[in-house]
Amino acid sequence: QENYWIKPDSLFKFVQPTASVQFWGAYSSGEKAQFAANGPLEAAQDRMSFMLRRARFGFKGKPYKRVSYVLTVQLDNLGKDKLSSVRGATNTGTLGILDAFVTTRVTNNEMAFITVGYLQPQISRECITGDINVNSLDKSVSQTYIRQHMDGKNYGRAAGLNVGGTKTKGNFSLTYNAGIFNNMTTAADTKNFPESSGKNWSPLMVERIALTFGDPEKKTYSINYETNNFFNKRNGITIAGFSSQQGGTDIFSNSHINGFDVLLNFKNLNLDGEWAWLDRTKEGTSTHAQTGHIRAGYNLIVADKYFLEPCFMITDYSGDAAGQFTGRDRLYDAGVNWYLNQRNFKISVHYIAQEGAGVNGYTDGVTFKKGNFLGAALVVIM
Amino acid sequence: QENYWIKPDSLFKFVQPTASVQFWGAYSSGEKAQFAANGPLEAAQDRMSFMLRRARFGFKGKPYKRVSYVLTVQLDNLGKDKLSSVRGATNTGTLGILDAFVTTRVTNNEMAFITVGYLQPQISRECITGDINVNSLDKSVSQTYIRQHMDGKNYGRAAGLNVGGTKTKGNFSLTYNAGIFNNMTTAADTKNFPESSGKNWSPLMVERIALTFGDPEKKTYSINYETNNFFNKRNGITIAGFSSQQGGTDIFSNSHINGFDVLLNFKNLNLDGEWAWLDRTKEGTSTHAQTGHIRAGYNLIVADKYFLEPCFMITDYSGDAAGQFTGRDRLYDAGVNWYLNQRNFKISVHYIAQEGAGVNGYTDGVTFKKGNFLGAALVVIM
Amino acid sequence: QENYWIKPDSLFKFVQPTASVQFWGAYSSGEKAQFAANGPLEAAQDRMSFMLRRARFGFKGKPYKRVSYVLTVQLDNLGKDKLSSVRGATNTGTLGILDAFVTTRVTNNEMAFITVGYLQPQISRECITGDINVNSLDKSVSQTYIRQHMDGKNYGRAAGLNVGGTKTKGNFSLTYNAGIFNNMTTAADTKNFPESSGKNWSPLMVERIALTFGDPEKKTYSINYETNNFFNKRNGITIAGFSSQQGGTDIFSNSHINGFDVLLNFKNLNLDGEWAWLDRTKEGTSTHAQTGHIRAGYNLIVADKYFLEPCFMITDYSGDAAGQFTGRDRLYDAGVNWYLNQRNFKISVHYIAQEGAGVNGYTDGVTFKKGNFLGAALVVIM
Repeated sequence: QENYWIKPDSLFKFVQPTASVQFWGAYSSGEKAQFAANGPLEAAQDRMSFMLRRARFGFKGKPYKRVSYVLTVQLDNLGKDKLSSVRGATNTGTLGILDAFVTTRVTNNEMAFITVGYLQPQISRECITGDINVNSLDKSVSQTYIRQHMDGKNYGRAAGLNVGGTKTKGNFSLTYNAGIFNNMTTAADTKNFPESSGKNWSPLMVERIALTFGDPEKKTYSINYETNNFFNKRNGITIAGFSSQQGGTDIFSNSHINGFDVLLNFKNLNLDGEWAWLDRTKEGTSTHAQTGHIRAGYNLIVADKYFLEPCFMITDYSGDAAGQFTGRDRLYDAGVNWYLNQRNFKISVHYIAQEGAGVNGYTDGVTFKKGNFLGAALVVIM
Repeated sequence: QENYWIKPDSLFKFVQPTASVQFWGAYSSGEKAQFAANGPLEAAQDRMSFMLRRARFGFKGKPYKRVSYVLTVQLDNLGKDKLSSVRGATNTGTLGILDAFVTTRVTNNEMAFITVGYLQPQISRECITGDINVNSLDKSVSQTYIRQHMDGKNYGRAAGLNVGGTKTKGNFSLTYNAGIFNNMTTAADTKNFPESSGKNWSPLMVERIALTFGDPEKKTYSINYETNNFFNKRNGITIAGFSSQQGGTDIFSNSHINGFDVLLNFKNLNLDGEWAWLDRTKEGTSTHAQTGHIRAGYNLIVADKYFLEPCFMITDYSGDAAGQFTGRDRLYDAGVNWYLNQRNFKISVHYIAQEGAGVNGYTDGVTFKKGNFLGAALVVIM
Repeated sequence: QENYWIKPDSLFKFVQPTASVQFWGAYSSGEKAQFAANGPLEAAQDRMSFMLRRARFGFKGKPYKRVSYVLTVQLDNLGKDKLSSVRGATNTGTLGILDAFVTTRVTNNEMAFITVGYLQPQISRECITGDINVNSLDKSVSQTYIRQHMDGKNYGRAAGLNVGGTKTKGNFSLTYNAGIFNNMTTAADTKNFPESSGKNWSPLMVERIALTFGDPEKKTYSINYETNNFFNKRNGITIAGFSSQQGGTDIFSNSHINGFDVLLNFKNLNLDGEWAWLDRTKEGTSTHAQTGHIRAGYNLIVADKYFLEPCFMITDYSGDAAGQFTGRDRLYDAGVNWYLNQRNFKISVHYIAQEGAGVNGYTDGVTFKKGNFLGAALVVIM
């Protein structure tokens, strides 16, 4: 082979199909909606709703020694009843792109990688952890507010370029990421410019630095995090700070996020949480919001046969009256996970209670108000 | 490995890609449409239309000994001319989800399986047979009416949970299925609640029981049926009864289907048919409809080289004037199939004649009236 | 096995996943748009836009000795800012079908193949070359005008049937293709008949004949062309003539394309170009347009380590005032490609300058006028 062609990696790894599914049965109660034009909020009948809460397939590969890629398609919320108490959109049977990025290793070690494509900016831990891996029934609601504030999209993905790396020395690890992205939701006229920064433009910058004491979370660098339960194999704590900044656009003069997150795994205990401050200025007026969650799970091995994890989570959001999402939104999750094959095969039963006021993901005071639900979940990752 | 982790099945089987294509060239004549606003039905010029009548790809796998899954994406009707005489929607190049389900075997034998996800409720045989496997050019029109009546969708799929199993003893086999599903098309206000049961909710229940005398259809349980031609290898008859029930929703107080189907394979003969009664009550008023088909094929092996099957089918629908689909709709199909590699590679030429009146899949009396067509088909299943 | 079943080819080749990605970072300047209703063209702020200019995945296989298929899904322009100077649509995260066809070899040699499905009609070389393989940053704009004129779609694909083949004898090769297709964009009333030929119908016929002197382009027949750079391995010239014809429809009485293209590879030089005349008649009035490009690249191997290709392209369009696209549209591309693993791994930096007037892809005089941009590209084909 000529010297100017780089050597491909093992052919077998070029294109590997991937698939995963998170099926839910959710029994909702107390959901309210506006059924008559200009009418009051009325109760929807309690109901069972089956759904593919999340289902994904795609491809990944490592065509060259220093080049890998991920492409993931989602068909989330298929079958979900709009009047169930589960948050999120409904789906009539369509597919969408979740991830599509290429990562290149710059250095011989794990200290510098460049990732380009359509990806999750590296912000809070909940935002960058795989959607069906968390130990609560669903991901914390706080991540949706962070993503919306950062780049205007519930899925949080944006096109851009991220530089990151990781270094472990003894009981101490450091991981950093910094990226520049498009925010395609800042046009004043979103009808005629639906996928655009608008007449004015500023880049979106996103950063995250994580310090670990004890066992590292990962031995190799990647921009996706797998789980917050290490099945009693990790004793360590990771504390991270994250932020995002964007300057002037059609709809704000600047927009910021600042926050931190913590993950502690010690013997049977899995404890994590995060808090973020969401700030925005327009025409000299600043609006502020805060959001976060705390979550605890405890691994129980019953009769050497069942790996169970009782788990509890509180999520919270509060925002100024002048902001995009106002008032309060709180969600409680209590339940048990049964892991049959670590994170790859899981059955869960959780109860979700929700409360709040204002205009946010819980209610807009006029057209909807979420109820509570009992949810059973099956997760299979292929 | 720890005792509490279940053992994965052969790695190779985790994610297997699948693909199939049914290409048609259809020469239509006699198609009519309303070309001018409030104008009469006028003849569209006779025309050739090429189309991917059905094209699917996806993944299937068996990650654990008792767990398997199927995920199928469809891109049906790509290239289809809206004014060809072929029924069904047109497609501008988009994809949709067809199937996405996980099946778990509960017992050590084939007697109990639970399937969850987005799947075809187990109702009439024509509804649960793979779309490109039947020996008529297209599936019977009756299945569309059954699916529409059952869960309001032409594709028939719904999110839910099905329990089923099969047992063979000597010359006798029994297969049963019973499921509970969401019907996401019963909101009074479908504009604001497009994917919802509406203010009121009732579960959709669907059942099917099949008895076989002689050779069984399948040795292992699954919710998809492959073909009604067994290529002279099966001598047996299967008779099934099926039904669906749903109680009060925004748009009806109850909705039912009752029906039966028969498949006879004896030497060279392939004979099948089904009949279903579709009933619905709203505010004390009942509406009734009936639909079904009968179809016969005869396998001919010519010069030990060509496996041909001349085939004939009649489908019929008749509905009350007060129902969703009214009047009569009849379709005749006569043609020949040439099987090059059993069901996996097939070339067919059929002539389709259609007639009817009222408001249904054949005509609405105002905007369209289907013509006849000569169709040539190529089927390749990978 | 019975004699009437044809023998499957190697099982391994049934379904092979494929994937490719073309990531761009484009810094735009001088882009203009109409921001206020009925307002003038105003400058959009200069901006960086990251995008998956093209990203594709799919499956291909060869289930039988004489039967192969290709299925490709695209998620192009993901992340693209509508106000960047890069042409083409934006994408909110959806997928679409690009190719879905089956090819059967009729003869024992390469002289006759039938391809059916959804495919690119075999017209100009730029139209039938893989989208991310050309040596300019993007494909020539001329191909978009040719595709639009031929079948009304920017992607150019249509459902139909193509017959083609190739024959090499010594230093001389001949390749031919002729196809019949649906044109689904000729209805007078595109709102009510969005995917239809309309009330009237004519088939679309497309032909191409190519003569090669010297080294052939391909040893085996296929309808997709890979690249115009053979990395110093080919000394040959290919000259092709192409045409398309369509008779009366709702929107024209006839429509034609006539053109030619040339590809010369000689030692380090890669030179190609094409020119096409686009004609249409309606109610006795004829409209005419012309479009084409010329492009030159020169392969440089630096220090036996870097395979570089400086490249320059001019594209041009001019059309009658009465036509679909009027006035002039010209684009200049100058840049350098760095090939790391032939066409499969490429990094490029190009500058694109655009100018024109009228109503076309460059401007409509009222709502948009394209600027210039500096683009960096990463191409990885798996």
